[in-house]
Amino acid sequence: MSTDHHAGLEDIEVLESSICEITQDGLTFRGYNITELAANSTFEEVACLLWNDQLPSQKELAEFRRELAGEYALPREITEHINHVPREAHPMAVLRTLISSLGLYDAEAADNTGPAMHRKSVRLLAKIPAIVAAIARHGNAKSHVESNGELSLAGNFLYCLNGKTPDAETERLLDTTLILYAEHELNASTFAARITAATQADTYSCVVAAVSALQGNLHGGANQRATEMLLTIGDAANVPEYIDARLKKKETIMGFGHRVYKNGDPRVPVLKALCQSLSEKKNEKKIFETAIAVEAEMLKRKRLHANVDYYSGLAFYLLGLSAEIYTCIFAMARAAGYLAHIAEQLEENKLIRPRGVYTGKRGLVYKPLASR
Amino acid sequence: MSTDHHAGLEDIEVLESSICEITQDGLTFRGYNITELAANSTFEEVACLLWNDQLPSQKELAEFRRELAGEYALPREITEHINHVPREAHPMAVLRTLISSLGLYDAEAADNTGPAMHRKSVRLLAKIPAIVAAIARHGNAKSHVESNGELSLAGNFLYCLNGKTPDAETERLLDTTLILYAEHELNASTFAARITAATQADTYSCVVAAVSALQGNLHGGANQRATEMLLTIGDAANVPEYIDARLKKKETIMGFGHRVYKNGDPRVPVLKALCQSLSEKKNEKKIFETAIAVEAEMLKRKRLHANVDYYSGLAFYLLGLSAEIYTCIFAMARAAGYLAHIAEQLEENKLIRPRGVYTGKRGLVYKPLASR
Repeated sequence: MSTDHHAGLEDIEVLESSICEITQDGLTFRGYNITELAANSTFEEVACLLWNDQLPSQKELAEFRRELAGEYALPREITEHINHVPREAHPMAVLRTLISSLGLYDAEAADNTGPAMHRKSVRLLAKIPAIVAAIARHGNAKSHVESNGELSLAGNFLYCLNGKTPDAETERLLDTTLILYAEHELNASTFAARITAATQADTYSCVVAAVSALQGNLHGGANQRATEMLLTIGDAANVPEYIDARLKKKETIMGFGHRVYKNGDPRVPVLKALCQSLSEKKNEKKIFETAIAVEAEMLKRKRLHANVDYYSGLAFYLLGLSAEIYTCIFAMARAAGYLAHIAEQLEENKLIRPRGVYTGKRGLVYKPLASR
Repeated sequence: MSTDHHAGLEDIEVLESSICEITQDGLTFRGYNITELAANSTFEEVACLLWNDQLPSQKELAEFRRELAGEYALPREITEHINHVPREAHPMAVLRTLISSLGLYDAEAADNTGPAMHRKSVRLLAKIPAIVAAIARHGNAKSHVESNGELSLAGNFLYCLNGKTPDAETERLLDTTLILYAEHELNASTFAARITAATQADTYSCVVAAVSALQGNLHGGANQRATEMLLTIGDAANVPEYIDARLKKKETIMGFGHRVYKNGDPRVPVLKALCQSLSEKKNEKKIFETAIAVEAEMLKRKRLHANVDYYSGLAFYLLGLSAEIYTCIFAMARAAGYLAHIAEQLEENKLIRPRGVYTGKRGLVYKPLASR
């Protein structure tokens, strides 16, 4: 391969953005450190911050929560659609389909002016958790649970998933993971959202493109795969042999390494502490110890650090959530970031259209079919 | 805006590809000039060429046509789904939803190995025209027409759309537009498909991301908008006044200019000749004269050339197709290119993940909600 093109766009700056800053040492949303936000804020507050470029006042936050709760409910057509989806389909493929379908019932889908954009953003952020919960229940042959407008976004998700109000600690822990996942600059799925927004496509198209790209194992799909691996390994004692066998087959170990962070992901310490405390409380020390052992082995053998997907998958597991929906939970959090980026793209839009380096044949003469 | 970043990725080479070469003077698919292909080839032959890097033998083409025809039929769930879609939803939003939904019924959706990729590519290329036709019929309250495996892809599309076998000339003219639309390097939608493929997402996710990005008016949506404009103008005599009014309001005239071609789009001469002959035959000279007048006015006033969307929209109009589905026809043709690029991306994969230039606030200290 020639080296004079920008393979994978690594380190190539493609646009200006005031939403999120990633440095080797940390991560900020609109200027606030992610560790501080995770410790003190709520997901709704962070969504407000991402969308409005400032932390909300108490009154603004209360109004935003009211708006969100008013949009939790799914159209009847969507809940009926979920009932007809094949149970064996991957939840991320179903989520992609249902977000797309949701757009068919929004008369403002293609209205990209400011107030309509805000209403659509609220609708998407509010309804995606209810869709994810309904997909998970359908996969387990359980019937749909209607949203509860008294609860926070994280709380309502758990309510729709389990059919009962979560305890405050579980809700808070899920909320913390949603904050950490809410936004991360121009990752592959957010970039897909901005490419789509730049063509002036409708907002649902932008979010659908993002969720489509998030699905892959090299992106959002990693949290499911990493946790499934920990469950397969089963015990810290099995780690060296397991990793050795996988690496010898040149297989990728999901949840390690990061295109941008080379010295470790700043979201990991928060999640790791959360996992440790949860594993002790839930008497699930074995999987946490296995996770620590894999992390140490990967650092030793490949000099790769664990990333956000590795410990968020484990956190979801310890919260009692099943692995098939981890990437969907990532999507419901990252929707906050997607929608901030879609709005920003439209503010000062330029079509995103790169070029390829042509390496193929040239000057061939067409030969009629009859002589082939 | 600072100028040290690569805004819109204009002229930035992001990956190597041997599928399509664009130069200021022309366009080739796998080394063959598009004008020669449009004159002598068929859409099926061009799809073979794009996927296999060589023109098929008679035997290979016959086998490929057989494979395609064997996949024309839609799953019952998809035709039932179409019947429940709101008639007022945009056909491109419906197409996005139904391609996504189609993936839920493909057990090989996430199998990215070679033979499965080929089977999925055949399925998608074969079924998208049937979906587009069914969407158009549903929009007009007409019932679904089952595919006819005796017909070519273009012929079957027209059969499913109109419920009768098209005459050979109409089929050939549509086929020519499909060839011209089949592939165009790293346009926004193909780039979205490759970003999605690079995360190792399933093939339907890749095509859904592409179709999502194609929808926008600055991309595939332009052919519908351009033709609607010609119908609004109505007569060549109205052109100067109309264009003047639009330009004074700083509105974009769709179908003009191109990120890559600065001296004119090589697909335009083929389409323009086709439109001229069709307009004479169908006694629709007025719209063709209007189109010529707008083209001249835009060149004079803005130095912008007509692009592929401008004359393909007119060609679709002259073929008797309604404007709402022009972008869907673009999608059913470009699917051939998307699938070639998805396969190529997986051959030597690297995650596509650029960076942003951070222009926002820094070092803000979190203020508790109670004090806000």
